[in-house]
Amino acid sequence: MKELKVVVIGGGSSYTPEIIEGFLKRISELPIKEIHLVDIKEGEEKLSIVGSLARRMIKKAGLNIKLVITLNRREALKDADFVVTQFRVGGLEARAKDERFPLKYKVLGQETTGPGGFAKALRTIPVMLDICKDIKEVCPDAWLINFTNPSGLVTEAVLKYTDIKCIGLCNVPIHMAMDVANMLEVPYRDIFIEFAGLNHLVWGKKVWHKDKDVTKEVIEKLLDGAVLNMKNISNLKWDGDFLRALGMIPCPYHRYFYMTDKMVEEEIEAAEDCNKGTRAEQVKAVEKTLFELYKSPELNVKPKELEKRGGAYYSDAAVSLISAIYNDKREIHTVNTLNNGIIKGVPDNSVIETNCIIDSRGATPLSLKGDLQIEVKGLIQAVKSYEVLAVETAVKGDKEKALLALASHPLVPSVTVAKDLLDDLLMINKEYLPQFKLD
Amino acid sequence: MKELKVVVIGGGSSYTPEIIEGFLKRISELPIKEIHLVDIKEGEEKLSIVGSLARRMIKKAGLNIKLVITLNRREALKDADFVVTQFRVGGLEARAKDERFPLKYKVLGQETTGPGGFAKALRTIPVMLDICKDIKEVCPDAWLINFTNPSGLVTEAVLKYTDIKCIGLCNVPIHMAMDVANMLEVPYRDIFIEFAGLNHLVWGKKVWHKDKDVTKEVIEKLLDGAVLNMKNISNLKWDGDFLRALGMIPCPYHRYFYMTDKMVEEEIEAAEDCNKGTRAEQVKAVEKTLFELYKSPELNVKPKELEKRGGAYYSDAAVSLISAIYNDKREIHTVNTLNNGIIKGVPDNSVIETNCIIDSRGATPLSLKGDLQIEVKGLIQAVKSYEVLAVETAVKGDKEKALLALASHPLVPSVTVAKDLLDDLLMINKEYLPQFKLD
Amino acid sequence: MKELKVVVIGGGSSYTPEIIEGFLKRISELPIKEIHLVDIKEGEEKLSIVGSLARRMIKKAGLNIKLVITLNRREALKDADFVVTQFRVGGLEARAKDERFPLKYKVLGQETTGPGGFAKALRTIPVMLDICKDIKEVCPDAWLINFTNPSGLVTEAVLKYTDIKCIGLCNVPIHMAMDVANMLEVPYRDIFIEFAGLNHLVWGKKVWHKDKDVTKEVIEKLLDGAVLNMKNISNLKWDGDFLRALGMIPCPYHRYFYMTDKMVEEEIEAAEDCNKGTRAEQVKAVEKTLFELYKSPELNVKPKELEKRGGAYYSDAAVSLISAIYNDKREIHTVNTLNNGIIKGVPDNSVIETNCIIDSRGATPLSLKGDLQIEVKGLIQAVKSYEVLAVETAVKGDKEKALLALASHPLVPSVTVAKDLLDDLLMINKEYLPQFKLD
Amino acid sequence: MKELKVVVIGGGSSYTPEIIEGFLKRISELPIKEIHLVDIKEGEEKLSIVGSLARRMIKKAGLNIKLVITLNRREALKDADFVVTQFRVGGLEARAKDERFPLKYKVLGQETTGPGGFAKALRTIPVMLDICKDIKEVCPDAWLINFTNPSGLVTEAVLKYTDIKCIGLCNVPIHMAMDVANMLEVPYRDIFIEFAGLNHLVWGKKVWHKDKDVTKEVIEKLLDGAVLNMKNISNLKWDGDFLRALGMIPCPYHRYFYMTDKMVEEEIEAAEDCNKGTRAEQVKAVEKTLFELYKSPELNVKPKELEKRGGAYYSDAAVSLISAIYNDKREIHTVNTLNNGIIKGVPDNSVIETNCIIDSRGATPLSLKGDLQIEVKGLIQAVKSYEVLAVETAVKGDKEKALLALASHPLVPSVTVAKDLLDDLLMINKEYLPQFKLD
Repeated sequence: MKELKVVVIGGGSSYTPEIIEGFLKRISELPIKEIHLVDIKEGEEKLSIVGSLARRMIKKAGLNIKLVITLNRREALKDADFVVTQFRVGGLEARAKDERFPLKYKVLGQETTGPGGFAKALRTIPVMLDICKDIKEVCPDAWLINFTNPSGLVTEAVLKYTDIKCIGLCNVPIHMAMDVANMLEVPYRDIFIEFAGLNHLVWGKKVWHKDKDVTKEVIEKLLDGAVLNMKNISNLKWDGDFLRALGMIPCPYHRYFYMTDKMVEEEIEAAEDCNKGTRAEQVKAVEKTLFELYKSPELNVKPKELEKRGGAYYSDAAVSLISAIYNDKREIHTVNTLNNGIIKGVPDNSVIETNCIIDSRGATPLSLKGDLQIEVKGLIQAVKSYEVLAVETAVKGDKEKALLALASHPLVPSVTVAKDLLDDLLMINKEYLPQFKLD
Repeated sequence: MKELKVVVIGGGSSYTPEIIEGFLKRISELPIKEIHLVDIKEGEEKLSIVGSLARRMIKKAGLNIKLVITLNRREALKDADFVVTQFRVGGLEARAKDERFPLKYKVLGQETTGPGGFAKALRTIPVMLDICKDIKEVCPDAWLINFTNPSGLVTEAVLKYTDIKCIGLCNVPIHMAMDVANMLEVPYRDIFIEFAGLNHLVWGKKVWHKDKDVTKEVIEKLLDGAVLNMKNISNLKWDGDFLRALGMIPCPYHRYFYMTDKMVEEEIEAAEDCNKGTRAEQVKAVEKTLFELYKSPELNVKPKELEKRGGAYYSDAAVSLISAIYNDKREIHTVNTLNNGIIKGVPDNSVIETNCIIDSRGATPLSLKGDLQIEVKGLIQAVKSYEVLAVETAVKGDKEKALLALASHPLVPSVTVAKDLLDDLLMINKEYLPQFKLD
Repeated sequence: MKELKVVVIGGGSSYTPEIIEGFLKRISELPIKEIHLVDIKEGEEKLSIVGSLARRMIKKAGLNIKLVITLNRREALKDADFVVTQFRVGGLEARAKDERFPLKYKVLGQETTGPGGFAKALRTIPVMLDICKDIKEVCPDAWLINFTNPSGLVTEAVLKYTDIKCIGLCNVPIHMAMDVANMLEVPYRDIFIEFAGLNHLVWGKKVWHKDKDVTKEVIEKLLDGAVLNMKNISNLKWDGDFLRALGMIPCPYHRYFYMTDKMVEEEIEAAEDCNKGTRAEQVKAVEKTLFELYKSPELNVKPKELEKRGGAYYSDAAVSLISAIYNDKREIHTVNTLNNGIIKGVPDNSVIETNCIIDSRGATPLSLKGDLQIEVKGLIQAVKSYEVLAVETAVKGDKEKALLALASHPLVPSVTVAKDLLDDLLMINKEYLPQFKLD
Repeated sequence: MKELKVVVIGGGSSYTPEIIEGFLKRISELPIKEIHLVDIKEGEEKLSIVGSLARRMIKKAGLNIKLVITLNRREALKDADFVVTQFRVGGLEARAKDERFPLKYKVLGQETTGPGGFAKALRTIPVMLDICKDIKEVCPDAWLINFTNPSGLVTEAVLKYTDIKCIGLCNVPIHMAMDVANMLEVPYRDIFIEFAGLNHLVWGKKVWHKDKDVTKEVIEKLLDGAVLNMKNISNLKWDGDFLRALGMIPCPYHRYFYMTDKMVEEEIEAAEDCNKGTRAEQVKAVEKTLFELYKSPELNVKPKELEKRGGAYYSDAAVSLISAIYNDKREIHTVNTLNNGIIKGVPDNSVIETNCIIDSRGATPLSLKGDLQIEVKGLIQAVKSYEVLAVETAVKGDKEKALLALASHPLVPSVTVAKDLLDDLLMINKEYLPQFKLD
């Protein structure tokens, strides 16, 4: 059994104990020999804290895994088998800005959706393509498991502009499936959701409990108050008439598109409330507490408090995906990969989020057996148009494309607002956008 | 040369002198023997006034055309060769309501676009299918030239639910081409615009002067203040950066989608200004003056004042289309017909607005030679999703589909607003919506 | 654990001990309570012999499974969970004729491919649709596992003209995969073949050993004499230049299209050799011997001699498929199901043979991740055109479509020959073709 | 009115008087100032004879057109407006070989279809791409009107591998339409045929006389003996049952696919008959007589005898196409251009033969309004697969692709025969196939 080298880029993240725990739990099926946690100069201190905790966790588990913490990415990548990316360009500071700058125009301020997500994509994609260049040179056969948001856009950039073997991952689908299993009180394994859409815009076309279509039942439970949500998204109630008419399960992020008015209102309120702040600002506090905890030399397991941070099932999703590849499991996971005709009317070379078989050869999407309903095609196609333009903008640093991308986004109310947003975005993120050659 | 019988449904419209003039001008190529102007009881007086004027116009032209005015539609349709529909269910009263009810929610109030256009489609489509039933029985070989708005939706209903030979017409494309010819100071015939999109959402992909691509030149003229607009749409200036980045010519109605904020603001102001009112309210005054004029027994030509009413080139578009069919001209007109793969990612059996060859066999679209740009695909696909749902709603009177249609519309900001809009719409239009079986 | 009722139509087949053995081997995962073997009057004797053997096999296994033999199909189907079809309309007599009548015109005489397969489809499809009518009425939730040839055509008829849950099965893909595993001397489970095409015209696009593309290696082994073939097909050597240029693995039946001249020549020789005869004629002798064996009251296992009959892996394919459905295994099997865009340029509602996930919900095809190579698209599309026409002919009994079907078949050299073949076919099969209303 | 320079490559052809006559007839709409006839060293004598005749024809017409004969292609192309290609690499000698070498294997020997057409494509395409290189450099705005066979393949090569403005032309569609007009005794202008398919494999989906579908009537006339054929194709009768079932009008070349057996038989007979020979051999005799005639200093018009040569309507097709471009006529012509989704299931970047609007901007295909019938899709897709491979082979000189191309051709009975054909082809044409780097 080939021993594995795993590299985590953005290793200083507060999430790292999550993924370390995941590796330790599955060590019997994943013979990991080395884990390298990579971060940048600015993250050195956090990396050091997290790295020490990781070492204590490995020791506690009685395993012989070499743990390396380093700022030398290229060196770390050498001969890697799996590369997990979970970095955040500009850190929580940049995220906080992403969440705030659109609010001025009464436009959604969110980390991955809308103008904030666009800003994040522009900052992230060049760094990701740089990582890919390293991979190409020092570990060309490695699998890149991308967890960095906006995951769909970042994965699309990798798959369009490089030939690295890459799968984009997000914990939304597994979260939804877990929540559905919980609300129906049945084992997770017996639930099958026909997921289809884009990252953070994925639908459960149908929910099955074994051979029984339980979609309607799930909708009723949802309307009755059953939870199907993420930590970071306001749990606004879905309208019953709408959900019943639609007959599909929305992901939590769909609220941004179907309840735009209220979601923006809530955000503005929170942002203006100095006791609350935006999500990033709340997270900053959580992070601070977490890192204090991590420092404790007694701590040698993932602390309970990490759950507050969000990102549930993150390690389950990532480590089980890695295991499915390594062990040629031919298992179904919901990931981000090339469309190639699965959703009709979306470009073949664009990334979608859908059910795939995962095996040694990577991700192979399952047929939707008929097209997505027209009820949601328009939204998906509109957002995909934005995404295609956003990826191109991020790679080429073209201001014209940037304007078209923003003006095409369903949440941006006019070209005038798009221009203002773009001006603000470029000014705020200047230091992270070398591709624009701003002076 | 076969003599022709033409039937105009909605014959009492103030536009009728326009089309009568058109027929008279082209009598050498269109041997019309009979014109039947049909209207309903409520329009009897206007029909009588317009009919008399039409008779005087024919007499003045020294032609031997039988003019019939009648409330008996079925009788009028018997053995018709061409049926032109230009009726308005509920009249200008209903239109005024369409324009007002969405404003309450800060949503566009417009005759053909947004919730107002949806209301109009719901009122109109059942009547149109009823007309088609008559046509099927008493003049199955007739050509139905539909001018009734929303023209794309109404035409889609006819082509999906009947086998009547139907072409949907709108004066926007001819208007744009005429304006372009004027701004470039070249003959209309030398201009070729690659039109593609949906009714009231049509793009000029490229503008050619003979073999020269003059798209950029036209964009600059537009930005310099050259007119490319309709009477009924606020002439807000396009943003130069946006238009240059896009590289295509928008139709006037695109403002509703790209300048939504300002367009709605202007509408609300006008609606609240008791000296102004909505467009329908302004038109009502114009109409009143027109009918006074029409009554004058001296008047035997189309009066100049009709131009204020809007609808420029309406008769040119309609009569030249009829002549192209009758004379097997194989001429290019921009009309509404089935997509059948011309715009990729839009359903085959949906109606688009595009350049077609018009001949004895009807309308045959021209290839776009490559796909529409991704920059506008999203918007077109989003609006088309709404349209497909709207047509289904109009035919079936299904409240669930109605909610999905409104919630899918890019100009409706949330499901909550969609529900409110739907409630208002159904209440206001109750008497015209038998298909909903409202009590 | 729900107890299962399984019905085998064509239960008197010599293959039945094969499938019985399969059920017995997997009894721990498939809790079968009843097996009904159904046949028609003409097969009564064989049914009785096979039935007794099956009973002895069950007894030997010490299992409490009720075995019913019956001529009353409808009664047998009542509340069935799985229906396996393996019948042969007209028996081996009809097959022998299918194999002989085209030879007169130097055209391939084969059970499933070419005019012989067409004849078989015309005889079989009406009976299959009749079975579906029964299923619809007495066991609408049952899964129909179709093994009756031509499996692709029969399955297409079921999926186009009924709403029965049906999967078409063939032992060619499993046979190919087993042979590949054997030639590479690796476990079957580690081999993954990207199958795509039509039934008896399926390609291995790529062969993988875990994460290694071994397609070229397999091609070289094949050219070196490694076996990849079926009992019933002449093992003519593939041309090395051709196979290397193509870079894909053909199925044994591809020889009929790429070595047409020699295959027909061999068939004619065999048919004219009174010591040999066509495949059906050879099989008849084997069958006779088999049934003699089956009669022996001592025999209580599947006899070795059955292997000569062909149909290797038949029971593996069928029973493991049933288990994957019953146990919601989400396992990959290669089956016949609707295309729905998997192979581009083949109609969505047509049946293809491809890798599918099999679970409680049936068969869901895997994306080919890009299109099939142009090198084989033409052949697949040509045969599919024939198949679409063949299915329509079989259902409607339309002689015009029949002629078009035959004339479209790549193996039929001209319309004149197609007409002669059609005349012969209709005369020979008259009694089995009620849909044609021949007198 | 811009004066035009026209260049005819292959100017020494016996057809040249045809096209000269065409230019002279349309001089009022095509202000030609210069005609350059270009040929190669081997054709110098013929060029000189034809050039002198052309000069006499111009003089007779009293026109002031400069006629240049030259072997310097590049010089001639300088600033050309239209380039017409009608050359034949290897001359009639090579064609005679194309017609003979497949007969040895009982395979069709024909100039444009089957292995002969493949050989011609391999000889021609490199020369054509070379011409395109010149055009790109010395007259990049010129229109290339390609008449060189196989016209579809050659045009596909130009449109795939260069960005020259090119339209492929063939006289088959105009010939069919003229024949149909004649058989119905109606003006050509009143006939409209919905042409769709590939070059020399084009169907008349429907025939219209004005607004009347006369397809059935035309089929009956055809079956009654009305002529719809080309000089160079044996006029074998179509089968009535087949044609009625099909309901479409085949082109003369379809006989090679639907009557393969008899067509090959006739060819073999002719080839073996020393008084007859293949078509090229017959043509050689005609050519000889023609050039004798051309030499006569008295001759100053196109001689009647040229008609025997075939190529009817060639000049009509070419010159009217040029005029439609030059005069921005927006007229319908049937030409070879990129598919772009017109025939579904054929690659977008492949060339089809279909009705197009011809104007200053070139050729824009008309929608087929629904797909081609499945009855003919298979054949078209099979031949297109061959064509795609053939074009790639011709450009790259790849022997593997060459084998795949031939083995994919519906008229080649086996891989073995394909290999033999390829060996012969390469040997026979060695001097004309530099791209293969044969030694």
